[in-house]
Amino acid sequence: MDHRIPVVDNKHRITTTQLDLPPRLLLGPGPSNYCNRVRLALSTNEIGHLDPKFIELMNETQELLRYVWQTDNKFTIPVSGTGSAAMEATLANCVEPGDVVLIGVNGYFGDRLCDMALRYGADVRRIHKAWGDVFTPDEIGEAIEQHRPVILGLIHAETATGAMQPMDRIGKLCREFDCLLLLDTVTSLGGAPVFLDRWHVDMAYSGSQKCISCPPGIAPLTLGPRAIEKLNRRKTKVANWYLDMTLVGKYWGAERTYHHTAPVNMNFALREALRIIAEEGLEHRWERHLRNAKALWEGLEEIGIGLHVDEEYRLPSLTAALVPDGVDAKAVIGYLLKNYNIEISGAFGPLAGKVWRIGLMGHNSRKENVVLLLAAIKDALEAA
Amino acid sequence: MDHRIPVVDNKHRITTTQLDLPPRLLLGPGPSNYCNRVRLALSTNEIGHLDPKFIELMNETQELLRYVWQTDNKFTIPVSGTGSAAMEATLANCVEPGDVVLIGVNGYFGDRLCDMALRYGADVRRIHKAWGDVFTPDEIGEAIEQHRPVILGLIHAETATGAMQPMDRIGKLCREFDCLLLLDTVTSLGGAPVFLDRWHVDMAYSGSQKCISCPPGIAPLTLGPRAIEKLNRRKTKVANWYLDMTLVGKYWGAERTYHHTAPVNMNFALREALRIIAEEGLEHRWERHLRNAKALWEGLEEIGIGLHVDEEYRLPSLTAALVPDGVDAKAVIGYLLKNYNIEISGAFGPLAGKVWRIGLMGHNSRKENVVLLLAAIKDALEAA
Repeated sequence: MDHRIPVVDNKHRITTTQLDLPPRLLLGPGPSNYCNRVRLALSTNEIGHLDPKFIELMNETQELLRYVWQTDNKFTIPVSGTGSAAMEATLANCVEPGDVVLIGVNGYFGDRLCDMALRYGADVRRIHKAWGDVFTPDEIGEAIEQHRPVILGLIHAETATGAMQPMDRIGKLCREFDCLLLLDTVTSLGGAPVFLDRWHVDMAYSGSQKCISCPPGIAPLTLGPRAIEKLNRRKTKVANWYLDMTLVGKYWGAERTYHHTAPVNMNFALREALRIIAEEGLEHRWERHLRNAKALWEGLEEIGIGLHVDEEYRLPSLTAALVPDGVDAKAVIGYLLKNYNIEISGAFGPLAGKVWRIGLMGHNSRKENVVLLLAAIKDALEAA
Repeated sequence: MDHRIPVVDNKHRITTTQLDLPPRLLLGPGPSNYCNRVRLALSTNEIGHLDPKFIELMNETQELLRYVWQTDNKFTIPVSGTGSAAMEATLANCVEPGDVVLIGVNGYFGDRLCDMALRYGADVRRIHKAWGDVFTPDEIGEAIEQHRPVILGLIHAETATGAMQPMDRIGKLCREFDCLLLLDTVTSLGGAPVFLDRWHVDMAYSGSQKCISCPPGIAPLTLGPRAIEKLNRRKTKVANWYLDMTLVGKYWGAERTYHHTAPVNMNFALREALRIIAEEGLEHRWERHLRNAKALWEGLEEIGIGLHVDEEYRLPSLTAALVPDGVDAKAVIGYLLKNYNIEISGAFGPLAGKVWRIGLMGHNSRKENVVLLLAAIKDALEAA
């Protein structure tokens, strides 16, 4: 090799300044803010992804994930990507071409599950509800009987609408019809009751940046024994190398075989965020989310802002607030960001321009945030 | 919804201690250590992934990636996963079922490219060289003529062997035969000369945790105009949702459409690592890597340790050092970790037990690390 240094083109060698970011209060659909302990864990001195010390830490993270999900699933790991990667991992591993996959679509994320399942060759069937509604067990039962799916996919917490799917009877129905139950818990895990094993859920995924209060970039995934059995019975390789859990499982399992380089610092942060949840206790955490959500709901109604989802099905972590007639949804979002450094979000699909999405997630579910946000929204409406 | 809190199972609610990790000097094949500026950037206060401030930062990162890769490719982004995800993204987007894909296999990562390409329905052809060897332009030319591939995949820097593939003539050969050139630059980017545009490379990927000196969990990807054209001509959707660059490109492009939540903190860290490279200048950085590698090579030979790769093709960032006869490779690795907090690595495949892999990457390519490592290895061999 000619080791002389050739001439470098400096056209793209731009000069930039040190990062100096505004102190945002993230009260949208995520990411949410995380606490200082998580920040410090994130920047802990690095070690290798096969270091004996890292392997200890992996085991602890897996066990704490089982706690927050209330599952005994051996295969419970953080995926080295965002929640969308963990979402795709469920289908990539458990769908074989031709499998009938039934998806409950009552918002954006049900649609996304359909899109993903189609890419793995599934015969996708949909049941629909309006954005903000949920399915009854009878509706689910009828659809299972009609379509006889191999997998039923539901969104426990629809981040696009703020609706929470009740889980009574659904898991048992799936078992009766020998169907795997796949559940999206991105916006509920760590913020609202989730009982994977009691609900007979076979596959679930989540994000780190919602009620877990860890930065985005690592995503919980769990596969129960029936899902693992389906994975092991596959006749074809998983059609996705990065998310192939027969390979990733050897890194997180007893073998510790290299697959890809784990994002070590993100793992440090996730472990700390989970430790904080274990210290607080799920019951207290869920109660706190509900208490602050109720204060938000009452406060919004007091200033004339209605709520899109019926209280019975309302997520404590994410609220869809109706934009009053004549108010420009985007202008209010911009006003809050500019004048208060508060991020709330608009919506997409049929709810675009009609609702704001307000998150009170994990570390951010605090009384002071509710009081400040209500005052800021009031100010924004008066200024509009 | 019944908002009463049900009884939680505390079986997996383990008590853990605060992270307290040993101060490892990471001189293996990666991750490498990063400097304090990157650590501070990583833990910068979080903002949303659609925040106007984040969008500014995205543009800067893209431009700096173009600089380190020496490319004008508009489509140059960090993928929200590790290097393996960016690796898979090249094939997932540019392979359509039946496409002939020719891969140069002279180490582990060539094999992995084959495995990935097969999952996307490619008709994979291989040319082989021994682990540690490289291909001549003539060998490549003959194989292209014989197989007429749609894509030729080569490993510029084979992390499994420490060999660097010379790139003269190869890109022009690919253009002659209307073949896309795909290049793995995981262990060379930021540590050895890489000139994507001059070499007529159409697709490339890298990792953040090697010579870029950023934590793992975010991975550079670039697609040139010919690759983008092939992507746009696809008759079928990309068979991978998370890595579908027709969707991801709308987030990194002018539209800024939501696809998945970007790992914001990892993006902060990557931007800072790239800024440091731009400040140092590629020429100085490459020269530094070569200087320290040469000192390592000389030092190893002085203590009777041979080098696996011919000097002409030797990577400055990763050295495969031959384990002397009668020495237990694993025992030395364990001795260095235990007594010096130094991580070096073994090898796999045909090199398992025969070589140690020693990385001097990015921030870690420094004289003091070479001197300490040589002394530590000498001690380990005497103690063995």
